[in-house]
Amino acid sequence: MSIMEKNAPAANAKRPAPSKVAAYTVEEGLRAIDAGTLTFEAWTRACLERIEERNDTVKAWVRLNGERAIAQAQAADRGTRPSVLTGVPIGIKDIVDTADMVTELGDPEMFPGRQPTHDAAVVSLIREIGFSILGKNTVSRHSIMLPGPCRNPHDSSRTPGASSAGSAASVADFMTPVSIGTQTGGSIVRPSTFCGSVGYKPTIDTLPYAGLRRYSRPLDTIGVISRAVGDTMMVMREFTGDPRFDVKAPVRKDVRVGVWHPAAWGQADKIVQDTVEDSARRLAAAGAKVVPLKLPASFDKMAEDHDVIMSFDLARSFKDIRRDHLDKCDPALIEYLDLGDTYTEADYGRVLTAADACRREFYEVARDVDVILSPATLGEAPDYSDTGSNVYIRLWTLLHNPAITLPVTRSERGLPIGIQLIGFVNEDAAFLRAARSVEAILGTRAADV
Amino acid sequence: MSIMEKNAPAANAKRPAPSKVAAYTVEEGLRAIDAGTLTFEAWTRACLERIEERNDTVKAWVRLNGERAIAQAQAADRGTRPSVLTGVPIGIKDIVDTADMVTELGDPEMFPGRQPTHDAAVVSLIREIGFSILGKNTVSRHSIMLPGPCRNPHDSSRTPGASSAGSAASVADFMTPVSIGTQTGGSIVRPSTFCGSVGYKPTIDTLPYAGLRRYSRPLDTIGVISRAVGDTMMVMREFTGDPRFDVKAPVRKDVRVGVWHPAAWGQADKIVQDTVEDSARRLAAAGAKVVPLKLPASFDKMAEDHDVIMSFDLARSFKDIRRDHLDKCDPALIEYLDLGDTYTEADYGRVLTAADACRREFYEVARDVDVILSPATLGEAPDYSDTGSNVYIRLWTLLHNPAITLPVTRSERGLPIGIQLIGFVNEDAAFLRAARSVEAILGTRAADV
Repeated sequence: MSIMEKNAPAANAKRPAPSKVAAYTVEEGLRAIDAGTLTFEAWTRACLERIEERNDTVKAWVRLNGERAIAQAQAADRGTRPSVLTGVPIGIKDIVDTADMVTELGDPEMFPGRQPTHDAAVVSLIREIGFSILGKNTVSRHSIMLPGPCRNPHDSSRTPGASSAGSAASVADFMTPVSIGTQTGGSIVRPSTFCGSVGYKPTIDTLPYAGLRRYSRPLDTIGVISRAVGDTMMVMREFTGDPRFDVKAPVRKDVRVGVWHPAAWGQADKIVQDTVEDSARRLAAAGAKVVPLKLPASFDKMAEDHDVIMSFDLARSFKDIRRDHLDKCDPALIEYLDLGDTYTEADYGRVLTAADACRREFYEVARDVDVILSPATLGEAPDYSDTGSNVYIRLWTLLHNPAITLPVTRSERGLPIGIQLIGFVNEDAAFLRAARSVEAILGTRAADV
Repeated sequence: MSIMEKNAPAANAKRPAPSKVAAYTVEEGLRAIDAGTLTFEAWTRACLERIEERNDTVKAWVRLNGERAIAQAQAADRGTRPSVLTGVPIGIKDIVDTADMVTELGDPEMFPGRQPTHDAAVVSLIREIGFSILGKNTVSRHSIMLPGPCRNPHDSSRTPGASSAGSAASVADFMTPVSIGTQTGGSIVRPSTFCGSVGYKPTIDTLPYAGLRRYSRPLDTIGVISRAVGDTMMVMREFTGDPRFDVKAPVRKDVRVGVWHPAAWGQADKIVQDTVEDSARRLAAAGAKVVPLKLPASFDKMAEDHDVIMSFDLARSFKDIRRDHLDKCDPALIEYLDLGDTYTEADYGRVLTAADACRREFYEVARDVDVILSPATLGEAPDYSDTGSNVYIRLWTLLHNPAITLPVTRSERGLPIGIQLIGFVNEDAAFLRAARSVEAILGTRAADV
C-alpha cells in the first residue's frame, strides 16, 4: 500500500464540509452551468456563504466585495460573457491594487484604509475576463515570512504559510475556486502546500506586476492558485491568450520526470521524502519516464543566495516604511533589512550573474525531462508562529522557472503534504500540461474533504 | 581603407548642425553638469530649440510638454535629484499612455484628443527617475509598418522606418538624447538603423508593458533609443535597479562575436554585407574573438513565422477598430488583418512552440560567443513610401533575445548604415556591456554630423 493510499482519506474531522457548489472546481462549475444545473449567481453566493461560515476561523479574507461580485455573476447569467471564465469567482491578494477596494498591503497598521486610485494591470485583465471578484485575501505580516491573521483551514493552530496565506487558504477551504497570489521567496508554493491547494508560480513576468507592492524586481512574480491544474490552465489561457494552455489536450502517461534531491533533502521530514519517492514510483508504474536528476551544486547555492537579492532589495523597498513606521515594524523585519544593508551592489550582481549561469545550465542538465519533481516544504504546516521554510522553493523564484505544488497526501495529523514540480522558463503551457499529467496519474485532488 | 573610413565622414550637407548642448549624449551632459558648465534647464531648452528648428521638417513629435519639461529640469537644477538621471530629457512614443498628455496611439483620426486617465507603468518609472519629459514621439500609421508623418532626419524624402519613427528620428536628429520606443516586429531596430540612432530592444518584459497599446502579447517589447550604448546602460540601470548595467565597467577588446548570415543575407545591399564583414574584420583586428556562426534553419523559419503570430494577434487587437473605424483603415492594414484571420489557434501554438525550441537551441549554438553580429536592414532608408524590411530583426522579437543596432557608416547618399547585435535572453546587462565593447572598437558614434 502506498503512502498516498494509506493517508489519502484522512479528512480533518473538525472542518465542516463545504456545499457541493462551493466545492466545484472551475471546470466542474462551468460544466454545471452548461448543463443548466447552476448559475453564476448561485456559484458566487455559495462561495460567499462558505466565507461567511468559515472566515472567522480561517481569516482568509480581509475585505469582501459581495454585492458587486453577485452583480458580476448576474451579468454573466444574463449572457454577457466576453470570455469562458466570465462570472467565475476569484479572490485577489491584498497587495494587488484595486480601484474599488481598499488595499492595505498586508500592513493595515501602516496603511489603514489605503484606497488605490488605479487597478493593477492584472486586475484590469481580471475585469476584462469578467471574473466575479469576491474580495481581497489576507497577507502575512509586512507581506513577508511573518505570521499574519490567516490560519490553516485544516487546523487553526497551524500556519497557512506565508505570504499569500489567504489566497492559498481560501482556495483550499472552498471559499473560492481561484485566487491570485504572488511569490518573491516561496509565497505561492509554500502556503499552497501547507493548505492543500494547487499553487502555480509562472515564469516571471508572465502576468504583469504593474500595480502591486514591489519587493524585488528580479523575484516578484504573480501566480494563480486553484484546486486543479486544469483550472489553472484555463485561467492562464485567458490571461495570456496562448491557446497552448489547452485543458482539452490529452493527458500523457509517458511524461518525463526528473527526481531531484536538493542539498537540503535531509532536512525534510520522512513523510515528505516518502511522498516524493512514492510519487516517483507511482508515476513510473503508470508509464512515466522517471529518472533521478542531479543538478550542479550551483543550484543549491541559489537557495542560499536568494537571500542576498531579497534582503538587498527589501532594504530599499522598505526604506520609507522603516523611516516613517519604525514603531510598527516587526523586529524580524528590521533584522532582515539590516542583513540586506550588509550586501553590496557587487554581491547583488554576482548572485544575479550566477543565476544567469544556472538558467543556461538548466537547459543542458534538464534537457531529457519535461518536469523536475522535488519536495516543496520540509513537512506539514508547523505551528502558527512559524510560517515554515522555503528552502526548496525560493531558488526557482530567483531562476524564474515555473513551479507548481500539488497536494498528494496527508500527514497523520490530517495536514496536506505536497510535491513541487518545476518546468522550463517561458514554456509554461507545456509545463502545465505535464503537471496535469502528473496530477492525473497520482489521482490527487486538492483539498479533498 | 575600410568601408567605414571611406564613408564615415560623409555628413548630410542639408541638415543643420545641432547646438553643442543638444548634441550631448547623456554621459556628456551629466559630465558637463558635474563640471558646472551646464544646467538641466539649459539642456532641456537646447533640445526644445532643436525641436522648434527641425520638427516642421522631421515631424518626430506630435505633442510637446515644454513648460513642464523645463519645470522638471529646474527642479533637478535646484538639487531635487532622486536618481542620477533626474533632469535628463526624454521622449516617449505616442502609444504609451501619459496621464498629463494626449495619447493618440498613432491613429489621430480614430482617437483625436484621446486623454488617458493613467500613466503607463513605464511612465511611472520615468517620473520616479525624474526625467524631463519633452513630449510624445510620432508613430507610423496605425503604429504598424505603414508610413506616418515622420521623415528621415538625414533626407526628408526618405523613410525614418516604422513604427517607433519619431522616437528614432528625434534621437538621431539631436532633439533628445533618449527616447522610449516599442517593437512588435522590427519597430525599434529598423527605424534606429535608418535614422542612425542606437536602438535597443531588451528581452521581452524587461520593461513593463502595462498601459501601452497592445498588439501581440508574445511580441510587444518596450525599449530604449539613445546615441551611445553607455547611455542606454545608464537608463536601463535606473529602470531595473540592476547594478550590472554598469557604464564604468571596462571595455573588453576580447569580446566574442559570432557572425551570422541569415537566409535572407543575399537580399541585402552590398554596402550592408560589406559593413557586417568589415565590422567583423575590424573587431578581429582589435583582439575580438570573431567566428562565423551557423544557426539552424529553424531560426530563419522564425522570420517567416513571425507573421503568423503578429497577424493573428492584430486581427484580434484591431477587431473593434475594424468594426468602428473601417473607413479610416488603410487597405494594407485590412489585408494584414485578413491574413491573420486565415491562421488557426493550432498554427499559432505551433509557431510559439517552434520558438520555444529555438530559444533552447540558442544556448547550444551560441554558447561560445557573447553576441551575434548580423545585418539590421537590407540597405539604407528607402523612399518615404516604403518603411523597409524587418526580415533580419523580427525573429529576435519572437525569440525574445535582446538586440541592438549600432550605426556604423553612411551610404553614398549620406544615409546611416548599421549592424545588429543579438544577445542571450534575460542577460541584458552582459549583452549591453559586450555591445559597448563592439561600439568602442568600431569607434562608431550615433548620428555623427
